[in-house]
Order: sequence, then structure tokens, then C-alpha cells
Amino acid sequence: MQRYFSNEALEVNQQIQLEKDDNHHIVRVMRGKVDDEVIIVDSTNIAYKAKIEIIEDNVANLRIINALENQQTELPIQVTIACGLSKNDKIDLIVQKATECGMNEFIPLALERDVVKWKGNKISNRIERLERISKEAAEQCHRNVIPEISHLSTIDTLQKEAGNYKHKLIAYEETAKKGQHGQLKETLKEVQAGDNLIIVFGSEGGLTELEVAKLKEVGYIECSLGPRILRAETAPIYALSAMSYHLEV
Amino acid sequence: MQRYFSNEALEVNQQIQLEKDDNHHIVRVMRGKVDDEVIIVDSTNIAYKAKIEIIEDNVANLRIINALENQQTELPIQVTIACGLSKNDKIDLIVQKATECGMNEFIPLALERDVVKWKGNKISNRIERLERISKEAAEQCHRNVIPEISHLSTIDTLQKEAGNYKHKLIAYEETAKKGQHGQLKETLKEVQAGDNLIIVFGSEGGLTELEVAKLKEVGYIECSLGPRILRAETAPIYALSAMSYHLEV
Repeated sequence: MQRYFSNEALEVNQQIQLEKDDNHHIVRVMRGKVDDEVIIVDSTNIAYKAKIEIIEDNVANLRIINALENQQTELPIQVTIACGLSKNDKIDLIVQKATECGMNEFIPLALERDVVKWKGNKISNRIERLERISKEAAEQCHRNVIPEISHLSTIDTLQKEAGNYKHKLIAYEETAKKGQHGQLKETLKEVQAGDNLIIVFGSEGGLTELEVAKLKEVGYIECSLGPRILRAETAPIYALSAMSYHLEV
Repeated sequence: MQRYFSNEALEVNQQIQLEKDDNHHIVRVMRGKVDDEVIIVDSTNIAYKAKIEIIEDNVANLRIINALENQQTELPIQVTIACGLSKNDKIDLIVQKATECGMNEFIPLALERDVVKWKGNKISNRIERLERISKEAAEQCHRNVIPEISHLSTIDTLQKEAGNYKHKLIAYEETAKKGQHGQLKETLKEVQAGDNLIIVFGSEGGLTELEVAKLKEVGYIECSLGPRILRAETAPIYALSAMSYHLEV
């Protein structure tokens, strides 16, 4: 059943209209008809079954039928993925796939070796684009939470905000090259349901030694994602898959 | 250091030239000069350091310097990924990412619900394209093995060849929907170094009940890849990341 997100807290029996893009989707793309059923996830992350009651002037009016049993599609920990700025199609791919794999928050990071810079207007355009991608991916993979796309950050911001995260990792190629592959598993053995975890990834150019040192100063730990050198866009998917495998499967 | 594959079994001190595409890459793309060093992996999966000795008429002649210590970039088990036919860009992505994540063999599968059909000439073109992608990805992620791209197969072929694989899994959405997520871990607990394992994935349309039943007849076991519905191109990456995490990290 098609899934949409609403910004409101919903109640059974309430009549609602979806936002403009979602309304277009239900009326034009899905060619919805009266009595068709969809799932609507509300602002409190509760999923409801809803039915199209009327379509007038290309606007669908839906009636909330009942709350669905919690389908447990969220990772038991809240994972923040902080990534250097890769080329646009790569960062789009990261956000789409990381949403499918259970990411809770995405932080775009301006790093020294990024090949791409976000400047001026481009910043808000890029963030809006990533928000759309994470919303669509969350609908598609049946999640009850849309991952938040954070503002553009730097290593200095991460340093200041280190206290916000219980577990802090850096996916660092140099650790992998030394053959030390155990840290990710060590960390995941320690996490408890409800914990939050942040993991930092370089873009194609990788992280500098100084950037890694700054993060280690505030409690970040280096970890390897296995012996093969993963591309910038593959590493976050690997990390989240490993977390899901450890915690959910 | 840039990595290339050779079809020959090499020896220290031997002089060699690379294949046409690789020679173009070293001379034109990398703008290689005399004394530049590269890594060449030979047909027996041994990695050698080599040096450019002469460049004549745009052809680089390389001298093999020494064998490199085994860098252990291969998964301890041989994993075959068998996938329904997704749209071209998706299947390209699967082969590239699965190569990075340690896949050993890729089998394109003609399934009932595939949105794409491979016919006539298209079959060999598509396979050659996937061979190029897996070779480039293997070079880029420092592997010593190029995953083999198998001929186009069917469920009936997999039935006949079931005896070739010790561990046989089906990534099946319906198992995930029932909330039964434990099978992948159960199987990975049983595997031993050197074993081979095949895992079958549907394309966007998924596998039919009949296809699943036919595979189960010959010993395939259904498994879930966690509670979220993964896209066709995400599922194989998740599975290989989980295997790497279980066996290598």
C-alpha cells in the first residue's frame, strides 16, 4: 500500500488532505480513486490506514480509518551519518540508500579534501533536494520516520556537538589499511536500544590526519569497514547494513 | 598505487605490456612516466609491484619488481550473487557495489516478474558491460580477484546447479514481512573459510511463490534482510556488507 507522511498529529476518523506534492502523487501518479486505501504516517510517527473519500478539483480528501500495528521498521538505535561532500549523484545515492538502511539523521560535512563545495544558494537547494530524497525513500521502504537532513556542518561543529552523541565513530581508510578491523563490532556490542551513534565519512578525497585528530580529541574512535577500499558512497551503506545485521537480524 | 589485472601468470623480473584498455589508462589517463610504479595482479591472483621501464609509441613496457605481501582483501567465503534483471543502471550499480563488498560471482537471472528482458545480441553486450564494471571496481577497491559474470540463467538452471553451492539462500521480502529475521545469521554461523554460498534476489518485481518453491525444493532457504523493504539494488549490498561484517570485521 502506498505510504505518505503528514506534518500533523492525526486521529482516527479525521478528514485530511495531503501536501501538494503528495496530493499530486496520489491523484495523478497513482491515479487514486474513491475508496482506495493508503498508509499515512503522522508527525508522531504513527502509521494510519486511510481511504480516499472524495476527489474534487484534483484534490483528494482522505478519511483516517485506523492506526496500524507498529511494524517495527526503525533501527533500535538512532544513527547519524555525517559525510563529506561527494558529487551530487553520489550524495543523493548515499541519502537514498542510508534511508533504506535505517539512518536517522544526515549531516553534510564541508571537509578539506571535498571535490565539491556548497556555496550560497546552492546550500539550501542541495538540502531541500536531499530532504525530498529521504522522504521518498522513507515512504518507499515503509519507514515511520523521515531522516532529518541537517544544515551544512564542519569538523569544528562536530567537535562542539560531540556531547550530543553517545557513540562516535570515524570510518577511516588508514585504520583498515593497518588490518585493524574489530572496532565497529566492539562499539556495536556496547550499544543499547535508544542510544544514539554518529559515524563520520570522508568524501572521495578522504579525511585529513588533522580532521581525524580533531574528532579523536572529543571522543571519536576510528573504525574499519573491512579490508576492501570502499567508495565514498558505499561506505555508509556498508556501515548501516552492518548495524542492522548486528541489531535487527 | 593504481592497480591493473593481467591474464598471464607473472614472474619477478618479467617484462610485460598491459591489455589495450589498461595500456590506454596507464599512458593517457594516468599520464604514467618512466619509473612510475603500479600494482599488477596476475592470473593466479598474486599482486606484484611493477615499474614503467619504457614508453614507446604510446605503449608502456613494465618490469615486474616483486610480489606484494598478501593483503587479504578477499572474503573468506566465495559468494555468488544471483539477481533478477533490473533496469540497466541498477544492475550496473549492483555489480559495482557487490564487487567492492567482496562478491565472487554474479549470475544475471531471467525471472517471471523482471521489468527488463535480455534478448539476442543484448545478452552478450550486457554481460561484457558488467565484466568491465566488475574489473574496474576490483581494481579500484584493491581486490586480487575479478568477480566472474556468469551467463544469463534461470531458476531451472539454479535448480540443476544447486549441488555446486554449499550454502543456498533466497532474500525474500515475504519472510521479512513475517518478522522472521534470524536466518541470515544462522547460516553465517555455520559457514567455514573456503565454503561457497549463493544468494538469490528478485528484481524490482520480486520473486514469485513458484520461483521460491522451486529453489526451496533443491535446498535453498529463505532469509530476511531486516525489517525495511530494500530496493532491488540495495539488497545485495546489504547482504554482502552483513557477510563481511560477520566474517571479516
